[in-house]
Amino acid sequence: MDARLHLLPNGPAGPGPRRADATRNHALLLDTARRILDESGVEGLTMDKLAREAGLGKGTIFRRFGSRTGLLREMLNEIESDFQRRFMSGPPPLGPGAGAAISADAVTRLIAYGRERIELLSIQGDLLRASEEIGDERYSSPARAVGLLHLRILLKQAGFDGDIEVASFTLLAALEATLILYENRAEHISMQRLADGWELLVLKITACTS
Amino acid sequence: MDARLHLLPNGPAGPGPRRADATRNHALLLDTARRILDESGVEGLTMDKLAREAGLGKGTIFRRFGSRTGLLREMLNEIESDFQRRFMSGPPPLGPGAGAAISADAVTRLIAYGRERIELLSIQGDLLRASEEIGDERYSSPARAVGLLHLRILLKQAGFDGDIEVASFTLLAALEATLILYENRAEHISMQRLADGWELLVLKITACTS
Repeated sequence: MDARLHLLPNGPAGPGPRRADATRNHALLLDTARRILDESGVEGLTMDKLAREAGLGKGTIFRRFGSRTGLLREMLNEIESDFQRRFMSGPPPLGPGAGAAISADAVTRLIAYGRERIELLSIQGDLLRASEEIGDERYSSPARAVGLLHLRILLKQAGFDGDIEVASFTLLAALEATLILYENRAEHISMQRLADGWELLVLKITACTS
Repeated sequence: MDARLHLLPNGPAGPGPRRADATRNHALLLDTARRILDESGVEGLTMDKLAREAGLGKGTIFRRFGSRTGLLREMLNEIESDFQRRFMSGPPPLGPGAGAAISADAVTRLIAYGRERIELLSIQGDLLRASEEIGDERYSSPARAVGLLHLRILLKQAGFDGDIEVASFTLLAALEATLILYENRAEHISMQRLADGWELLVLKITACTS
Protein backbone atom coordinates (compact mmCIF):
# COMPACT_ATOMS: atom_id res chain seq x y z
CA MET A 1 0.00 0.00 0.00
CA ASP A 2 3.06 2.27 0.27
CA ALA A 3 3.14 4.23 -2.93
CA ARG A 4 6.91 4.75 -2.75
CA LEU A 5 7.82 1.08 -2.70
CA HIS A 6 7.64 0.94 -6.44
CA LEU A 7 9.43 4.22 -7.05
CA LEU A 8 12.26 3.50 -4.65
CA PRO A 9 12.97 -0.24 -4.79
CA ASN A 10 16.50 0.45 -3.58
CA GLY A 11 15.60 3.26 -1.21
CA PRO A 12 16.05 3.40 2.55
CA ALA A 13 14.98 0.23 4.36
CA GLY A 14 13.25 1.78 7.39
CA PRO A 15 9.54 2.59 7.09
CA GLY A 16 9.94 6.10 8.51
CA PRO A 17 11.25 8.07 5.53
CA ARG A 18 9.17 6.08 3.05
CA ARG A 19 6.01 6.74 5.05
CA ALA A 20 6.85 10.43 5.23
CA ASP A 21 7.33 10.44 1.45
CA ALA A 22 4.02 8.65 0.95
CA THR A 23 2.23 11.15 3.15
CA ARG A 24 3.84 14.01 1.28
CA ASN A 25 2.89 12.47 -2.09
CA HIS A 26 -0.64 11.91 -0.88
CA ALA A 27 -1.02 15.54 0.17
CA LEU A 28 0.61 16.71 -3.07
CA LEU A 29 -1.79 14.60 -5.15
CA LEU A 30 -4.87 15.87 -3.33
CA ASP A 31 -3.69 19.48 -3.56
CA THR A 32 -2.99 19.08 -7.28
CA ALA A 33 -6.33 17.34 -7.84
CA ARG A 34 -8.16 20.18 -6.08
CA ARG A 35 -6.38 22.74 -8.26
CA ILE A 36 -7.24 20.84 -11.47
CA LEU A 37 -10.83 20.59 -10.27
CA ASP A 38 -11.00 24.35 -9.71
CA GLU A 39 -9.52 25.06 -13.13
CA SER A 40 -11.06 22.36 -15.30
CA GLY A 41 -14.00 20.85 -13.44
CA VAL A 42 -14.64 17.18 -12.73
CA GLU A 43 -14.41 16.23 -16.42
CA GLY A 44 -10.93 17.73 -16.63
CA LEU A 45 -9.63 15.74 -13.69
CA THR A 46 -8.03 12.76 -15.41
CA MET A 47 -5.40 10.46 -13.97
CA ASP A 48 -3.04 11.42 -16.83
CA LYS A 49 -3.34 15.11 -16.08
CA LEU A 50 -2.96 14.55 -12.35
CA ALA A 51 0.24 12.51 -12.88
CA ARG A 52 1.68 15.15 -15.23
CA GLU A 53 0.89 18.12 -13.00
CA ALA A 54 1.94 16.43 -9.77
CA GLY A 55 5.15 15.14 -11.40
CA LEU A 56 4.49 11.58 -10.24
CA GLY A 57 4.03 8.29 -12.06
CA LYS A 58 0.54 7.17 -13.02
CA GLY A 59 1.25 3.86 -11.31
CA THR A 60 1.82 5.67 -8.04
CA ILE A 61 -1.53 7.41 -8.34
CA PHE A 62 -3.43 4.24 -9.15
CA ARG A 63 -1.80 2.36 -6.26
CA ARG A 64 -2.70 5.23 -3.96
CA PHE A 65 -6.35 5.72 -4.97
CA GLY A 66 -7.25 2.50 -6.80
CA SER A 67 -9.05 4.37 -9.59
CA ARG A 68 -10.32 7.78 -10.62
CA THR A 69 -13.50 6.98 -8.69
CA GLY A 70 -11.36 6.23 -5.63
CA LEU A 71 -9.66 9.62 -5.98
CA LEU A 72 -13.00 11.43 -6.31
CA ARG A 73 -14.34 9.48 -3.36
CA GLU A 74 -11.42 10.57 -1.18
CA MET A 75 -11.87 14.21 -2.20
CA LEU A 76 -15.58 13.93 -1.45
CA ASN A 77 -14.93 12.33 1.91
CA GLU A 78 -12.79 15.29 2.91
CA ILE A 79 -15.52 17.77 1.96
CA GLU A 80 -18.31 15.80 3.60
CA SER A 81 -16.29 15.14 6.76
CA ASP A 82 -15.56 18.82 7.12
CA PHE A 83 -19.23 19.70 6.60
CA GLN A 84 -20.25 17.03 9.14
CA ARG A 85 -17.84 18.40 11.75
CA ARG A 86 -19.36 21.82 11.24
CA PHE A 87 -23.01 20.82 11.61
CA MET A 88 -22.42 18.28 14.39
CA SER A 89 -20.03 20.15 16.65
CA GLY A 90 -19.21 23.53 15.10
CA PRO A 91 -20.33 27.01 16.11
CA PRO A 92 -23.97 28.16 15.68
CA PRO A 93 -26.12 28.61 13.73
CA LEU A 94 -25.04 25.46 11.81
CA GLY A 95 -23.54 23.67 14.82
CA PRO A 96 -24.97 23.28 18.32
CA GLY A 97 -22.68 25.80 19.97
CA ALA A 98 -22.82 25.62 23.75
CA GLY A 99 -25.59 26.16 26.25
CA ALA A 100 -28.40 27.22 23.90
CA ALA A 101 -31.90 25.95 24.63
CA ILE A 102 -32.41 23.00 22.30
CA SER A 103 -36.04 23.67 21.40
CA ALA A 104 -35.35 27.24 20.28
CA ASP A 105 -32.29 26.24 18.34
CA ALA A 106 -33.47 23.43 16.04
CA VAL A 107 -35.31 25.53 13.44
CA THR A 108 -32.36 27.91 13.16
CA ARG A 109 -30.02 24.96 12.68
CA LEU A 110 -32.30 23.38 10.07
CA ILE A 111 -32.29 26.65 8.14
CA ALA A 112 -28.51 26.95 8.49
CA TYR A 113 -28.03 23.35 7.32
CA GLY A 114 -29.67 24.06 3.97
CA ARG A 115 -28.13 27.50 3.55
CA GLU A 116 -24.62 26.16 4.22
CA ARG A 117 -25.22 23.14 2.00
CA ILE A 118 -26.32 25.36 -0.89
CA GLU A 119 -23.27 27.57 -0.26
CA LEU A 120 -21.07 24.46 -0.38
CA LEU A 121 -22.74 23.38 -3.63
CA SER A 122 -22.03 26.76 -5.19
CA ILE A 123 -18.30 26.02 -4.63
CA GLN A 124 -17.97 22.22 -4.77
CA GLY A 125 -21.15 21.39 -6.65
CA ASP A 126 -19.59 19.51 -9.55
CA LEU A 127 -17.68 17.20 -7.27
CA LEU A 128 -20.68 16.62 -5.00
CA ARG A 129 -22.86 15.98 -8.02
CA ALA A 130 -20.35 13.41 -9.24
CA SER A 131 -20.86 11.56 -5.97
CA GLU A 132 -24.53 11.19 -6.81
CA GLU A 133 -23.44 9.42 -9.97
CA ILE A 134 -20.89 7.05 -8.42
CA GLY A 135 -22.45 3.59 -8.39
CA ASP A 136 -25.65 3.27 -6.41
CA GLU A 137 -24.53 5.61 -3.65
CA ARG A 138 -26.99 8.35 -4.48
CA TYR A 139 -29.18 7.52 -1.51
CA SER A 140 -27.07 5.14 0.51
CA SER A 141 -23.75 6.94 0.94
CA PRO A 142 -22.49 7.31 4.52
CA ALA A 143 -22.54 11.12 4.13
CA ARG A 144 -26.20 11.02 3.18
CA ALA A 145 -27.01 8.72 6.10
CA VAL A 146 -25.40 11.19 8.51
CA GLY A 147 -27.30 14.07 6.89
CA LEU A 148 -30.63 12.23 7.19
CA LEU A 149 -29.99 11.41 10.86
CA HIS A 150 -29.07 15.03 11.56
CA LEU A 151 -32.25 16.29 9.90
CA ARG A 152 -34.37 13.78 11.84
CA ILE A 153 -32.93 14.87 15.18
CA LEU A 154 -33.54 18.54 14.37
CA LEU A 155 -37.07 17.90 13.06
CA LYS A 156 -37.88 16.09 16.32
CA GLN A 157 -36.39 18.89 18.43
CA ALA A 158 -38.32 21.42 16.36
CA GLY A 159 -41.55 19.64 17.25
CA PHE A 160 -42.37 18.47 13.70
CA ASP A 161 -45.70 16.69 14.04
CA GLY A 162 -45.62 14.41 10.98
CA ASP A 163 -43.69 11.43 9.62
CA ILE A 164 -40.12 12.49 10.40
CA GLU A 165 -38.52 9.81 8.27
CA VAL A 166 -40.43 10.79 5.13
CA ALA A 167 -39.89 14.50 5.83
CA SER A 168 -36.13 13.99 6.17
CA PHE A 169 -35.98 12.42 2.72
CA THR A 170 -38.02 15.26 1.24
CA LEU A 171 -35.75 17.87 2.80
CA LEU A 172 -32.55 16.16 1.68
CA ALA A 173 -33.92 15.67 -1.85
CA ALA A 174 -34.45 19.45 -2.06
CA LEU A 175 -30.71 19.91 -1.44
CA GLU A 176 -29.35 17.34 -3.90
CA ALA A 177 -26.38 18.60 -5.87
CA THR A 178 -27.89 17.45 -9.17
CA LEU A 179 -31.12 19.34 -8.49
CA ILE A 180 -29.55 22.52 -7.07
CA LEU A 181 -27.09 22.79 -9.98
CA TYR A 182 -29.88 22.21 -12.48
CA GLU A 183 -32.05 24.91 -10.88
CA ASN A 184 -29.12 27.32 -10.75
CA ARG A 185 -27.46 26.69 -14.11
CA ALA A 186 -30.27 25.57 -16.41
CA GLU A 187 -33.15 27.48 -14.83
CA HIS A 188 -31.08 30.48 -13.68
CA ILE A 189 -32.48 30.51 -10.17
CA SER A 190 -29.87 32.22 -7.99
CA MET A 191 -28.30 30.41 -5.05
CA GLN A 192 -29.77 33.19 -2.88
CA ARG A 193 -33.30 32.37 -4.05
CA LEU A 194 -32.67 28.66 -3.49
CA ALA A 195 -31.43 29.38 0.05
CA ASP A 196 -34.46 31.60 0.77
CA GLY A 197 -36.76 28.91 -0.65
CA TRP A 198 -35.18 26.39 1.70
CA GLU A 199 -35.69 28.69 4.70
CA LEU A 200 -39.36 29.19 3.84
CA LEU A 201 -39.83 25.42 3.46
CA VAL A 202 -38.31 24.79 6.88
CA LEU A 203 -40.37 27.54 8.52
CA LYS A 204 -43.58 26.22 7.01
CA ILE A 205 -43.10 22.58 7.88
CA THR A 206 -41.93 23.26 11.45
CA ALA A 207 -44.01 26.29 12.47
CA CYS A 208 -47.33 25.16 11.10
CA THR A 209 -49.35 22.38 12.69
CA SER A 210 -51.56 20.70 10.16
CA MET B 1 -39.59 4.17 -41.79
CA ASP B 2 -42.10 1.42 -42.67
CA ALA B 3 -41.10 -1.60 -40.66
CA ARG B 4 -42.57 -4.02 -43.18
CA LEU B 5 -40.52 -2.83 -46.15
CA HIS B 6 -37.67 -5.06 -45.12
CA LEU B 7 -39.80 -8.09 -44.34
CA LEU B 8 -41.85 -7.91 -47.51
CA PRO B 9 -39.64 -6.63 -50.33
CA ASN B 10 -41.99 -8.24 -52.81
CA GLY B 11 -45.17 -7.49 -50.93
CA PRO B 12 -48.10 -5.39 -52.03
CA ALA B 13 -47.14 -2.07 -53.60
CA GLY B 14 -49.86 0.13 -52.06
CA PRO B 15 -49.12 1.82 -48.78
CA GLY B 16 -52.43 0.82 -47.23
CA PRO B 17 -51.87 -2.81 -46.25
CA ARG B 18 -48.24 -2.16 -45.34
CA ARG B 19 -49.23 0.68 -43.03
CA ALA B 20 -51.86 -1.48 -41.43
CA ASP B 21 -49.26 -4.19 -40.87
CA ALA B 22 -46.83 -1.66 -39.42
CA THR B 23 -49.48 -0.38 -37.04
CA ARG B 24 -50.32 -3.92 -36.03
CA ASN B 25 -46.66 -4.77 -35.48
CA HIS B 26 -46.18 -1.60 -33.50
CA ALA B 27 -49.08 -2.44 -31.18
CA LEU B 28 -47.90 -6.05 -30.91
CA LEU B 29 -44.38 -4.92 -29.96
CA LEU B 30 -45.61 -2.52 -27.30
CA ASP B 31 -48.00 -5.10 -25.84
CA THR B 32 -45.23 -7.69 -25.76
CA ALA B 33 -42.78 -5.20 -24.23
CA ARG B 34 -45.28 -4.34 -21.50
CA ARG B 35 -45.78 -8.03 -20.70
CA ILE B 36 -42.01 -8.64 -20.51
CA LEU B 37 -41.69 -5.59 -18.28
CA ASP B 38 -44.35 -6.92 -15.91
CA GLU B 39 -42.73 -10.34 -15.77
CA SER B 40 -39.01 -9.50 -15.82
CA GLY B 41 -38.58 -5.82 -15.01
CA VAL B 42 -36.67 -3.21 -17.01
CA GLU B 43 -33.44 -5.25 -16.94
CA GLY B 44 -35.23 -8.21 -18.51
CA LEU B 45 -36.56 -6.18 -21.41
CA THR B 46 -33.91 -6.85 -24.08
CA MET B 47 -34.34 -6.44 -27.81
CA ASP B 48 -33.50 -10.13 -28.28
CA LYS B 49 -36.22 -11.22 -25.91
CA LEU B 50 -38.72 -8.80 -27.43
CA ALA B 51 -38.00 -10.10 -30.96
CA ARG B 52 -38.33 -13.72 -29.84
CA GLU B 53 -41.57 -13.25 -27.90
CA ALA B 54 -43.20 -11.02 -30.52
CA GLY B 55 -42.13 -13.39 -33.30
CA LEU B 56 -40.61 -10.52 -35.32
CA GLY B 57 -37.10 -9.85 -36.60
CA LYS B 58 -34.71 -7.82 -34.47
CA GLY B 59 -34.11 -5.55 -37.47
CA THR B 60 -37.79 -4.67 -37.53
CA ILE B 61 -37.69 -3.68 -33.89
CA PHE B 62 -34.58 -1.55 -34.28
CA ARG B 63 -36.02 0.21 -37.34
CA ARG B 64 -39.20 0.87 -35.43
CA PHE B 65 -37.71 2.20 -32.16
CA GLY B 66 -34.14 3.08 -33.08
CA SER B 67 -32.72 1.50 -29.94
CA ARG B 68 -33.70 -0.02 -26.63
CA THR B 69 -33.71 3.52 -25.23
CA GLY B 70 -36.12 4.53 -27.98
CA LEU B 71 -38.44 1.68 -27.05
CA LEU B 72 -38.33 2.61 -23.34
CA ARG B 73 -38.93 6.24 -24.27
CA GLU B 74 -42.04 5.35 -26.24
CA MET B 75 -43.39 3.23 -23.39
CA LEU B 76 -42.67 6.08 -20.98
CA ASN B 77 -44.37 8.59 -23.24
CA GLU B 78 -47.54 6.52 -23.17
CA ILE B 79 -47.55 6.38 -19.38
CA GLU B 80 -46.74 10.06 -18.94
CA SER B 81 -49.26 11.16 -21.58
CA ASP B 82 -51.97 9.20 -19.87
CA PHE B 83 -51.04 10.69 -16.48
CA GLN B 84 -51.00 14.18 -18.00
CA ARG B 85 -54.45 13.72 -19.51
CA ARG B 86 -55.72 12.68 -16.10
CA PHE B 87 -54.31 15.65 -14.15
CA MET B 88 -54.98 18.24 -16.85
CA SER B 89 -58.48 17.32 -17.94
CA GLY B 90 -59.63 14.25 -16.02
CA PRO B 91 -62.15 13.94 -13.22
CA PRO B 92 -61.48 15.34 -9.72
CA PRO B 93 -59.69 15.20 -7.40
CA LEU B 94 -56.68 14.82 -9.75
CA GLY B 95 -58.25 16.66 -12.67
CA PRO B 96 -60.16 19.93 -12.69
CA GLY B 97 -63.58 18.41 -13.18
CA ALA B 98 -66.21 20.97 -14.12
CA GLY B 99 -67.56 24.00 -12.33
CA ALA B 100 -65.68 23.72 -9.03
CA ALA B 101 -64.39 26.92 -7.40
CA ILE B 102 -60.73 27.13 -8.38
CA SER B 103 -59.39 28.43 -5.08
CA ALA B 104 -60.99 25.67 -3.03
CA ASP B 105 -59.84 23.01 -5.42
CA ALA B 106 -56.10 23.61 -5.80
CA VAL B 107 -54.90 22.07 -2.51
CA THR B 108 -57.02 18.98 -3.12
CA ARG B 109 -55.57 18.64 -6.60
CA LEU B 110 -52.00 19.11 -5.31
CA ILE B 111 -52.59 16.32 -2.80
CA ALA B 112 -54.14 14.11 -5.47
CA TYR B 113 -51.23 14.78 -7.85
CA GLY B 114 -48.68 13.32 -5.40
CA ARG B 115 -50.94 10.49 -4.27
CA GLU B 116 -51.64 9.41 -7.85
CA ARG B 117 -47.99 9.77 -8.83
CA ILE B 118 -46.91 7.56 -5.92
CA GLU B 119 -49.62 5.06 -6.91
CA LEU B 120 -48.27 5.12 -10.49
CA LEU B 121 -44.74 4.59 -9.20
CA SER B 122 -45.86 1.56 -7.21
CA ILE B 123 -46.92 -0.01 -10.55
CA GLN B 124 -44.60 1.51 -13.18
CA GLY B 125 -41.76 2.64 -10.93
CA ASP B 126 -38.94 0.73 -12.59
CA LEU B 127 -39.78 2.11 -16.01
CA LEU B 128 -40.21 5.66 -14.70
CA ARG B 129 -36.95 5.39 -12.79
CA ALA B 130 -35.22 4.28 -15.98
CA SER B 131 -36.35 7.56 -17.57
CA GLU B 132 -34.41 9.45 -14.88
CA GLU B 133 -31.32 7.62 -16.07
CA ILE B 134 -31.75 8.20 -19.81
CA GLY B 135 -29.20 10.81 -20.82
CA ASP B 136 -29.56 14.18 -19.12
CA GLU B 137 -33.34 14.08 -19.09
CA ARG B 138 -33.68 13.75 -15.36
CA TYR B 139 -34.74 17.37 -14.98
CA SER B 140 -35.40 18.50 -18.52
CA SER B 141 -37.78 15.90 -19.92
CA PRO B 142 -41.00 17.21 -21.45
CA ALA B 143 -43.03 15.19 -18.91
CA ARG B 144 -41.20 16.89 -16.07
CA ALA B 145 -41.73 20.31 -17.60
CA VAL B 146 -45.47 19.69 -17.78
CA GLY B 147 -45.45 18.46 -14.18
CA LEU B 148 -43.60 21.57 -12.98
CA LEU B 149 -45.99 23.87 -14.80
CA HIS B 150 -48.97 22.05 -13.35
CA LEU B 151 -47.59 22.34 -9.81
CA ARG B 152 -46.88 26.05 -10.29
CA ILE B 153 -50.41 26.78 -11.44
CA LEU B 154 -51.87 24.90 -8.48
CA LEU B 155 -49.47 26.53 -5.97
CA LYS B 156 -50.52 29.93 -7.28
CA GLN B 157 -54.21 29.04 -7.11
CA ALA B 158 -53.69 27.71 -3.58
CA GLY B 159 -52.29 31.09 -2.54
CA PHE B 160 -48.73 29.88 -1.84
CA ASP B 161 -46.91 32.98 -0.60
CA GLY B 162 -43.29 32.08 -1.40
CA ASP B 163 -41.05 31.44 -4.43
CA ILE B 164 -43.31 29.27 -6.55
CA GLU B 165 -40.59 28.21 -8.95
CA VAL B 166 -38.32 26.91 -6.19
CA ALA B 167 -41.26 25.27 -4.39
CA SER B 168 -42.31 23.43 -7.57
CA PHE B 169 -38.84 21.89 -7.89
CA THR B 170 -38.89 20.85 -4.22
CA LEU B 171 -42.29 19.21 -4.60
CA LEU B 172 -41.37 17.37 -7.77
CA ALA B 173 -38.06 16.20 -6.25
CA ALA B 174 -40.06 14.59 -3.43
CA LEU B 175 -41.90 12.48 -6.04
CA GLU B 176 -38.92 11.31 -8.11
CA ALA B 177 -39.10 7.65 -9.03
CA THR B 178 -35.53 7.02 -7.88
CA LEU B 179 -36.24 8.52 -4.45
CA ILE B 180 -39.67 6.96 -3.93
CA LEU B 181 -38.43 3.49 -4.89
CA TYR B 182 -35.40 3.88 -2.62
CA GLU B 183 -37.60 4.94 0.31
CA ASN B 184 -40.02 2.08 -0.34
CA ARG B 185 -37.64 -0.77 -1.17
CA ALA B 186 -34.45 0.02 0.71
CA GLU B 187 -35.94 1.87 3.68
CA HIS B 188 -39.20 -0.10 3.79
CA ILE B 189 -41.41 2.98 4.03
CA SER B 190 -44.82 1.95 2.69
CA MET B 191 -46.36 3.74 -0.31
CA GLN B 192 -49.20 4.69 2.05
CA ARG B 193 -46.80 6.50 4.39
CA LEU B 194 -45.16 8.22 1.45
CA ALA B 195 -48.55 9.37 0.17
CA ASP B 196 -49.54 10.61 3.65
CA GLY B 197 -46.19 12.39 3.96
CA TRP B 198 -46.85 14.13 0.65
CA GLU B 199 -50.30 15.24 1.79
CA LEU B 200 -48.89 16.71 5.01
CA LEU B 201 -46.17 18.53 3.06
CA VAL B 202 -48.76 20.09 0.74
CA LEU B 203 -51.04 21.07 3.63
CA LYS B 204 -48.19 22.71 5.52
CA ILE B 205 -46.75 24.70 2.65
CA THR B 206 -50.12 25.91 1.39
CA ALA B 207 -52.12 26.39 4.61
CA CYS B 208 -49.41 28.10 6.65
CA THR B 209 -48.30 31.65 6.01
CA SER B 210 -44.76 32.21 7.15
